Amino acid sequence: MEVMQVLHMNKGEGETSYAKNSIVQRKIISVATSIIEKAVEECLEKNFLDSMGIADLGCSSGPNSLMVISDIIDTVYATSNRKGIPLPELRVSLNDLPGNDFNNIFISLPEFYSQLKMEKNIGPEGCFISGVPGSFYGRLFPKKSLHFIHSSSSLHWLSQVPRLLDSNILKPLNKGNIYISKTSPGSVLDAYLSQFKRDFSVFLKSRSEEMVVDGHMVLSFMGRVSTDPSSEESCMQWELLAQALMSMALEGLIEEEKIDSFNAPYYAPSAQEVRSVVEEEGSFTINCLEAFEIEWDGGAPSNNNFQKHIDKIEKDNFSRGQQVAKTIRAVVESMLEVHFGRKIIDELFKRYAQVVGDYFSRTSAKNIDLVISLTKKG
Amino acid sequence: MEVMQVLHMNKGEGETSYAKNSIVQRKIISVATSIIEKAVEECLEKNFLDSMGIADLGCSSGPNSLMVISDIIDTVYATSNRKGIPLPELRVSLNDLPGNDFNNIFISLPEFYSQLKMEKNIGPEGCFISGVPGSFYGRLFPKKSLHFIHSSSSLHWLSQVPRLLDSNILKPLNKGNIYISKTSPGSVLDAYLSQFKRDFSVFLKSRSEEMVVDGHMVLSFMGRVSTDPSSEESCMQWELLAQALMSMALEGLIEEEKIDSFNAPYYAPSAQEVRSVVEEEGSFTINCLEAFEIEWDGGAPSNNNFQKHIDKIEKDNFSRGQQVAKTIRAVVESMLEVHFGRKIIDELFKRYAQVVGDYFSRTSAKNIDLVISLTKKG
Repeated sequence: MEVMQVLHMNKGEGETSYAKNSIVQRKIISVATSIIEKAVEECLEKNFLDSMGIADLGCSSGPNSLMVISDIIDTVYATSNRKGIPLPELRVSLNDLPGNDFNNIFISLPEFYSQLKMEKNIGPEGCFISGVPGSFYGRLFPKKSLHFIHSSSSLHWLSQVPRLLDSNILKPLNKGNIYISKTSPGSVLDAYLSQFKRDFSVFLKSRSEEMVVDGHMVLSFMGRVSTDPSSEESCMQWELLAQALMSMALEGLIEEEKIDSFNAPYYAPSAQEVRSVVEEEGSFTINCLEAFEIEWDGGAPSNNNFQKHIDKIEKDNFSRGQQVAKTIRAVVESMLEVHFGRKIIDELFKRYAQVVGDYFSRTSAKNIDLVISLTKKG
Repeated sequence: MEVMQVLHMNKGEGETSYAKNSIVQRKIISVATSIIEKAVEECLEKNFLDSMGIADLGCSSGPNSLMVISDIIDTVYATSNRKGIPLPELRVSLNDLPGNDFNNIFISLPEFYSQLKMEKNIGPEGCFISGVPGSFYGRLFPKKSLHFIHSSSSLHWLSQVPRLLDSNILKPLNKGNIYISKTSPGSVLDAYLSQFKRDFSVFLKSRSEEMVVDGHMVLSFMGRVSTDPSSEESCMQWELLAQALMSMALEGLIEEEKIDSFNAPYYAPSAQEVRSVVEEEGSFTINCLEAFEIEWDGGAPSNNNFQKHIDKIEKDNFSRGQQVAKTIRAVVESMLEVHFGRKIIDELFKRYAQVVGDYFSRTSAKNIDLVISLTKKG
């Protein structure tokens, strides 16, 4: 599977689109907000910037794409005002793979520019937004052109399925699984880890060439607190998807071999694994590395009435299952469709909603979101 | 009509798409090739460039978008080789209105990058292509960031319908016409000319802020040789479209008032009009200003057997009419659809093909393409 050609969030604005099903990713952005703000402030504290290069990597489409940029601009604006310095010229780059729905973002830019003008008096000479299609596992931007880089919910995607798994089609190493699971052999765990190390290291090296010294970068992605790569917190969403697939295989709706030969180009690293790649690669200093629990459906009690919330959850396991199924479908459908064919998709996610709903009734389902803030060394 | 929201070439890769119907525009690019090459060379002769900012304004989608960029890169590559200097880092921006089909361009970028690597050994650290959505009648790029700007088949589109025409809906000034025609009153001609002057002046001012001193710009667009703005060479394609519309109005398929209230946001200036705006605005020196005849269907004898070509044309007036109708449809459909509604479009272009075919049988139908090469003053 060519990840670069296959992986993209569901396009458009329809029922199954990413634009309509990205509340969890918005939640993930919002937990990192204070870390992003601090990093942007530090960027501006250290230097007087006449022009500031900002990039969002894995911007996807839908409302989240411009929300991140809006937050970053807010912070640059507030910091400049506080320091009494002129706002730098803002050069904003939105990056994702070439199959991303950039048209969807671009069509909402005129309104975004109008709001910038209305709310902050930033005119057309003050902010320049562009789209940069390409894989962030390689160079994307001119040398020393960026001051702040953000990436959310993207770096858990690998550049490819670990070669060892993709090359053993006749004798599948990871039978019955589509990602790391409790039944995966050690070789599978090792293959995933080394692919992550290689990819993340290339990512850091590429960014280090594109950033100025003292530039800041905030990355957030799925990870784990546990040292065990087959822990529930990092594998269960895939495990349940595998269950839904297997139930269809049992009924002859999918060939079991198809499941055996599918492996997600995904890895949820531990904080320690992330730290050690950064240290080995050597271009960046770690400012902070934090882990946040994110409920699968992005829900969290937003008021004090916690018991009421719990009641609601118990009643609503079914609808929460459906919600999660929609979220995951908007993200992985493009990949699954290429491997399993289009016609199984609706049924698969009907079953997935069911197994996720059942899981909700047994436990409070959470992922771990790792957030790391880095500074480019001199 | 909001031109920025309405005007875009037909999207996708289908039968009526711009991607499939832009041979004429390709022809227009190719007649300017030697002028583009000369300008790019001069850019590189004057300075040692470490990093070179290149922009194509009104890039549209389909094969032409990357063909222009490919030609420019070829010239930079050849010139650098000839001078024995390292190839500068290439920062390439593709601009068009936010409704343009950028997805269509972006999906072919991986192959474009592969070819760059294969044919010229330009790797991912050597060329950075981005999409910049927005109107070129205003700022698009950071200050002093560009060395070479190209624009083809775009600047004949105005930023808006001249206000005078749009504001007299109850008492239409340009009755029975959709652009300047022999029957248009002087006030209509004046309104179009002053809109062009205002727009082109804003264009030049915006670019002058974005370009470095001695940066080069090659612009090509529909114009005229005649001093008369209602000359056939600049109006006939619209005139025939109006005829097709009027024939539908006669049969009650379109309301005549709808035709009276539609005015194309378009102007084909004379060389002298172009020259005087450049001189008044003052930021650029004119290196050359040339006029080329372009057959409506982009056809031109490509071999020596001219008589055979003529015979073919005479036999094929009908199919040439169809070809022109497709070309024009791919460009103006978005605008016509908003004004007249979707359901008249197929019938309209069937009739348009017919009237264009008839016209071909009476005369050799040609447009005038103006090409101007400019240098940013110090």
